[in-house]
Amino acid sequence: MIRCAIIGATGFTGVELIKILLRHPHAEITCLTSRQDSPPALSLLVSGLSKKSKLKLEKFQLAKVVKGSDVVFLCLPHTESAPVAVKLLKAGKVVIDLGADFRLNSAAAYVKWYGGWKHPEPALLKQAVYGLTEFYRAEVKQANLIANPGCYPTGASLGLIPLLKKKLIDPSSIVIDSKSGTSGAGRKLCQATFYGTVNENFKAYRVGKHQHTPEIEMAARVAGGASKLDFSFVPHLLPVERGILTTIHAKKHKGVTDAKLRQVFQNTYNSEAFVRVLGRDEFPDLKQVQNTNFCEIGLTAPKGSDWIVVVTAIDNLIKGASGQAVQNMNVRFGFSETEGFE
Amino acid sequence: MIRCAIIGATGFTGVELIKILLRHPHAEITCLTSRQDSPPALSLLVSGLSKKSKLKLEKFQLAKVVKGSDVVFLCLPHTESAPVAVKLLKAGKVVIDLGADFRLNSAAAYVKWYGGWKHPEPALLKQAVYGLTEFYRAEVKQANLIANPGCYPTGASLGLIPLLKKKLIDPSSIVIDSKSGTSGAGRKLCQATFYGTVNENFKAYRVGKHQHTPEIEMAARVAGGASKLDFSFVPHLLPVERGILTTIHAKKHKGVTDAKLRQVFQNTYNSEAFVRVLGRDEFPDLKQVQNTNFCEIGLTAPKGSDWIVVVTAIDNLIKGASGQAVQNMNVRFGFSETEGFE
Amino acid sequence: MIRCAIIGATGFTGVELIKILLRHPHAEITCLTSRQDSPPALSLLVSGLSKKSKLKLEKFQLAKVVKGSDVVFLCLPHTESAPVAVKLLKAGKVVIDLGADFRLNSAAAYVKWYGGWKHPEPALLKQAVYGLTEFYRAEVKQANLIANPGCYPTGASLGLIPLLKKKLIDPSSIVIDSKSGTSGAGRKLCQATFYGTVNENFKAYRVGKHQHTPEIEMAARVAGGASKLDFSFVPHLLPVERGILTTIHAKKHKGVTDAKLRQVFQNTYNSEAFVRVLGRDEFPDLKQVQNTNFCEIGLTAPKGSDWIVVVTAIDNLIKGASGQAVQNMNVRFGFSETEGFE
Amino acid sequence: MIRCAIIGATGFTGVELIKILLRHPHAEITCLTSRQDSPPALSLLVSGLSKKSKLKLEKFQLAKVVKGSDVVFLCLPHTESAPVAVKLLKAGKVVIDLGADFRLNSAAAYVKWYGGWKHPEPALLKQAVYGLTEFYRAEVKQANLIANPGCYPTGASLGLIPLLKKKLIDPSSIVIDSKSGTSGAGRKLCQATFYGTVNENFKAYRVGKHQHTPEIEMAARVAGGASKLDFSFVPHLLPVERGILTTIHAKKHKGVTDAKLRQVFQNTYNSEAFVRVLGRDEFPDLKQVQNTNFCEIGLTAPKGSDWIVVVTAIDNLIKGASGQAVQNMNVRFGFSETEGFE
Repeated sequence: MIRCAIIGATGFTGVELIKILLRHPHAEITCLTSRQDSPPALSLLVSGLSKKSKLKLEKFQLAKVVKGSDVVFLCLPHTESAPVAVKLLKAGKVVIDLGADFRLNSAAAYVKWYGGWKHPEPALLKQAVYGLTEFYRAEVKQANLIANPGCYPTGASLGLIPLLKKKLIDPSSIVIDSKSGTSGAGRKLCQATFYGTVNENFKAYRVGKHQHTPEIEMAARVAGGASKLDFSFVPHLLPVERGILTTIHAKKHKGVTDAKLRQVFQNTYNSEAFVRVLGRDEFPDLKQVQNTNFCEIGLTAPKGSDWIVVVTAIDNLIKGASGQAVQNMNVRFGFSETEGFE
Repeated sequence: MIRCAIIGATGFTGVELIKILLRHPHAEITCLTSRQDSPPALSLLVSGLSKKSKLKLEKFQLAKVVKGSDVVFLCLPHTESAPVAVKLLKAGKVVIDLGADFRLNSAAAYVKWYGGWKHPEPALLKQAVYGLTEFYRAEVKQANLIANPGCYPTGASLGLIPLLKKKLIDPSSIVIDSKSGTSGAGRKLCQATFYGTVNENFKAYRVGKHQHTPEIEMAARVAGGASKLDFSFVPHLLPVERGILTTIHAKKHKGVTDAKLRQVFQNTYNSEAFVRVLGRDEFPDLKQVQNTNFCEIGLTAPKGSDWIVVVTAIDNLIKGASGQAVQNMNVRFGFSETEGFE
Repeated sequence: MIRCAIIGATGFTGVELIKILLRHPHAEITCLTSRQDSPPALSLLVSGLSKKSKLKLEKFQLAKVVKGSDVVFLCLPHTESAPVAVKLLKAGKVVIDLGADFRLNSAAAYVKWYGGWKHPEPALLKQAVYGLTEFYRAEVKQANLIANPGCYPTGASLGLIPLLKKKLIDPSSIVIDSKSGTSGAGRKLCQATFYGTVNENFKAYRVGKHQHTPEIEMAARVAGGASKLDFSFVPHLLPVERGILTTIHAKKHKGVTDAKLRQVFQNTYNSEAFVRVLGRDEFPDLKQVQNTNFCEIGLTAPKGSDWIVVVTAIDNLIKGASGQAVQNMNVRFGFSETEGFE
Repeated sequence: MIRCAIIGATGFTGVELIKILLRHPHAEITCLTSRQDSPPALSLLVSGLSKKSKLKLEKFQLAKVVKGSDVVFLCLPHTESAPVAVKLLKAGKVVIDLGADFRLNSAAAYVKWYGGWKHPEPALLKQAVYGLTEFYRAEVKQANLIANPGCYPTGASLGLIPLLKKKLIDPSSIVIDSKSGTSGAGRKLCQATFYGTVNENFKAYRVGKHQHTPEIEMAARVAGGASKLDFSFVPHLLPVERGILTTIHAKKHKGVTDAKLRQVFQNTYNSEAFVRVLGRDEFPDLKQVQNTNFCEIGLTAPKGSDWIVVVTAIDNLIKGASGQAVQNMNVRFGFSETEGFE
């Protein structure tokens, strides 16, 4: 049994981790910490928790976490993971960071996209492995510091990488139009998460300036073998709780047919446990992936047009966060990738 | 007082027309027809209808409609408007068709995009004026047959036309990613409009084959002064009742700045009663336009990127249908364009 | 033209008042005040506001309000209306208070149900007229201080009063089970109005201690001619924005039939412009009354049971607040009751 | 391993059963049948199903079901279970019927409440055990035919039975005001399940005539030790997918205090794995029980009133259907009651 600690266990991703790990046959939760002085009862956060459950929240104590865990999941706000991670790594723990602190491979990118933040551990940026499991499996297997991908980048990369890798599209023509449920914004109370604001509404936000832009650029470029990418990425807020649907538009290279496009995706994902490529004229919706670790992908190259469209759907809290984190843990510790999900 | 008949008054657009015309100081509703044998009571369809209202539904009788009306609004399914319109035009009525039968200027386009339909009155396609009021005002003023634009084309065209007219973008780079509330699908009961299907869900549909594609192409090309357009258009279904948000991405021509972009839109729409161009960093949402005839537009040309983004929001049933129809009636009969809306 | 001031114009009820009064042929809005230092633009609050509208928000200044208005609508939080009202009354204005400060006729009741609040103007409690228009029309016509009813009490009283007045039920058997949309909680941001809390959820709240309990008791008892009432009132929070549905259960007196029940309601409300009594087997829903000033009522006395059920539906912001306020203004100033609504 | 067959596996309750049984360590699904000629793919119905799953739908064949199963779950529409159950019982199978055909203990009650239906197997009505696990555990342990309770009756009975058993209330004063998510209506497409009808709406339905009325009466009366009950039961339709909240109002007997009430419920449910009695001033909501087999209960006896209020919340598809069915299977086959749920 792998002993698991979750640091920041009361947020949405922490709670999903608890749910997945409770079903995992080879993992036990040994430590749950919260920064709150009086956090809500776990039974209120984790619906369905057994009346006899002995899980409890505690304050973070480094020594205790180190002693009681083999792997530590960090579910902390940006800027708070880095200082904790460095200590846990020194103590020999495997660290899976669900935050943004180790996703980008350049300290300069944090300055530009994360409000001027100077990364306190730039050396670790090289050591961290980007945990997009399907494309970094070999690296994850060896990693002690896994930077779990962001939700938008997961949905975008799984659709973009095959297009780039197989050179099906003009890389200067890419549009990524993403739509996320509200849980992506976490539990914070603000005008944007007010029921009266979200319900029966829809909007674009952070147009041209969302902090996931450089992560998508890096993830798709590196795994896709492209040089610098200049795409248009616009995130939108859906009046639903869970799920991200990403519509990718790009201009295909001459001679790329619908059949070719389909074949590339099938070859790429055929043996993947958590990616489903849908059939002709089928496109994913959020219901099909909510509460699962699946990414579903639909695609088309309409006749008479230079454009192709790829649509991906994930649950932002599972495949876009906690599910992928457990998938990475499974890879890292040699379990079957589907443990905890079936 | 202009006497108004509504043919097909029990659908969503018919009901909206009733509501708007009831508030119109120079219009009176003289005839409401329904194809149903036992239509629901008007008080169930038009919430807020006075207990003393004398409005009633009747079966369509050409002679009666001709005798009792000055303007006839057709709210009929595709293929049903054309035969009715031709008779009403012969009888000297002004016809405003909220359906698709006269929107395209080529009978061939109907064959291709509307399931092989052979238009029964191809000669009328030349006579019909496309009622995108802001760009066809002069023509509407003279028209006896007004083809009221579709909902997606309205939202897309109001964003695209200024870009094309002022040659701000590469016309081969356009992506139109649209998201519509469910009322766009009308009242029909099917798996796609089942509560359990729509709620907490989101999906793309008719990707690469939506029948509004040629209408957007025609509307944007003609008013924008472009030659043939090959864009990517993907409509999506939102779990909300009303509203369409359209996110337009395109690659700007060298030297086009955010300021220039903004100025073009302000100049274009400054004197329009129903189009609001939002300020820097402001983007529209559906709430701001629901139950209004407004189109709100946000835009940006992010630094360091070749892309620009324009987002438009309308109420699909008002500016995207019945509101624009009344706006067109106002233009045609010489009323202030805002009558009925304030 | 009646000159109208709205004090506290940026809350939900203030905004609804603006919308209704803008359509009112005999009213003009002369003053809108907000307590906020930097309130949002009116065009963001009042969707559909004309681009040419000259309405603007200002800080409250007594002298200016007194000089510029004939009637003043108070849309202020509890405890804030009373001190303002007394000054406006002294200046000879007609005051319509949409808050709770003058609804109860006893200062002691405020102490008990409103957190120990000592009413600063107990003498005015006798002078204030309870503005449940259908049952206090004669008094409203003469009143200078109108206490506009609360949302739950409006829906409950319109269902209960005919039952009590005509002695159809055992007054000790009454259950009032109410379900409200979230706009009843106003614009405040808190855990209870967080999208993730409300969406796909439902709950009872303030069970046995809601502050509308004594108002319902007073309103139903006085107009219904009963002595003290001990009913069970439980409010619930619906994942919708607008509307209150109230299900009233009570044990009927021997010999009361479904037909008798129906007849009493029809007689009571037949000549009312804003109350619709539905037919046998018909029950109201929220859609039918949203954005209207209507109260719809369904009822039944099932065979073989001692119970009767009366269900009422209103829009909490219109008939349950701003609509009824304008209805009261119409009565007070001698206009047709439906002005502003049609 | 217990071999499980599900007859009618494509409905909402069938799909939930699949999900629960897939997680059950001592059960395997050996047969899934559907009456549809071309049912949707299981992967579309059961989101998260492994890409390698070998589960498949087949047409019902008695011999095959008999040979391949130990327990058979019937998820069939009313009137269709009875003929199938009798054959399976003769073949020695344990039958758990999630439909209504064996819930009532009198054929006459079916005639009255189920549209005149003459029960084809009245003798089996005596043999069937009502599967409200918490109160019929001993009987379930011995039963070969288990009538799994309806969703409304489960939520109502768990709140009512302790009140009646301990004689805390006047049994003639009971009001059961229930609110259900839309999945209770199943997958059928009709005006009532149209997105535009349900969304942002709320209504009472089948007032005074819902077919669960006699089941609640029987369940509460028998387990509660009361004589005939005449209560008011009104079901309502919530714009959410899952969950039933039931608000029970009743007049308490003299001397019953809040503390006494609380103690009775705690004593009743303290050792139950799936019933949580909440603390003072705490009331359940649907989120806490969705996707779980829990029933949560809040209660109060407000000072100064003769009334008490008990609120229960369940997931209609789990505790109100498939979860309780598996709970019953666990009891019947001697497993821990929580197997499959943790």
